[in-house]
Amino acid sequence: MRGEPLDAETIVSATEEVLRRHGPEKTTVLDVARLLGVSHGSVYRHFPSKAALREAVIRRWLDRVREDLVAAVQDAELTPPDRLRGLLTSMFAVKWAKAREDPELFATFRVLAAEHSTESRSHLAFLLDQIRAVVADGVAGGDFEPCDPEATARAVYNASTRFLDPRHAPEWQSPEIEAEAASVISLILDGMRAR
Amino acid sequence: MRGEPLDAETIVSATEEVLRRHGPEKTTVLDVARLLGVSHGSVYRHFPSKAALREAVIRRWLDRVREDLVAAVQDAELTPPDRLRGLLTSMFAVKWAKAREDPELFATFRVLAAEHSTESRSHLAFLLDQIRAVVADGVAGGDFEPCDPEATARAVYNASTRFLDPRHAPEWQSPEIEAEAASVISLILDGMRAR
Repeated sequence: MRGEPLDAETIVSATEEVLRRHGPEKTTVLDVARLLGVSHGSVYRHFPSKAALREAVIRRWLDRVREDLVAAVQDAELTPPDRLRGLLTSMFAVKWAKAREDPELFATFRVLAAEHSTESRSHLAFLLDQIRAVVADGVAGGDFEPCDPEATARAVYNASTRFLDPRHAPEWQSPEIEAEAASVISLILDGMRAR
Repeated sequence: MRGEPLDAETIVSATEEVLRRHGPEKTTVLDVARLLGVSHGSVYRHFPSKAALREAVIRRWLDRVREDLVAAVQDAELTPPDRLRGLLTSMFAVKWAKAREDPELFATFRVLAAEHSTESRSHLAFLLDQIRAVVADGVAGGDFEPCDPEATARAVYNASTRFLDPRHAPEWQSPEIEAEAASVISLILDGMRAR
């Protein structure tokens, strides 16, 4: 048994470790309690269900994904078209890296995405918002054709499905995936550029 | 027992019927033989394996999909941009209709697509070829910006993943799917139009 009082953060870290070992299907609250040397009642005191626990792990994991993404695209010197190209390229690269380097947590994210969980919906809203902001800048500055930035952001996201949706993770291992993504990004940007 | 000699076409029709009833996982060669009132040896004489039989059913099913598609886009009066819009709209509509109206055969197609079977690969080649032909016409006539029609056809197909890939069939039931598809098609066409 551990000496320190048990906090939510410690439980989330332990769950992350268990998920990495066993994957989303086989992880139980009891595994987490066992790793921490506490009763499963102590875990339930912080998280009312296995689903709540899994959601907390993915929330923290997606926070890191969003930090990586924001760090990758904060160069304000670039024009909106170059920023949009950079944003999409980074969105794809960050997702591909997570799928490759952290397959068990990525599998957990896939399960939550399939269930349209709160976390997965708020992550989608974040991505759409990032795209919408660059589109709006580009329209305001005359780089992009006038459009409804909200609707255009959704179309850009939908056209990127193959490179972003976790159901396509098997394709991301193809040696051509980078060239295919670059080609779709160019098609999208050509479609938005002011005439 | 049936009186007439057993031909491949009859076996394929019976298999289609069994697949519609039981779905791809539960259908066996024995079910097909039973429906025809023959021994399973008689079925194996025409098709060496359950996989070969399933592939034959999907080949015939995809032939019908391709006929529907060719019928939908044969209006040669239209300009290449309008033909491309029509082709993509029809490609999506035909696929959505099959998923909705023929769910068990569609599930069989999903299994074959996931296994990258010969039939699913040759169907992809057919779709890419249809797109490539319209792109090449549009480039030749000056409606589209100069490009490599082969590579552009691939980018157009990849940008359409959400509306074509059977893994996205659950989204096709959304009331917004038609508007979302139209918006991506417009983005693609704007990207290709000559400047």
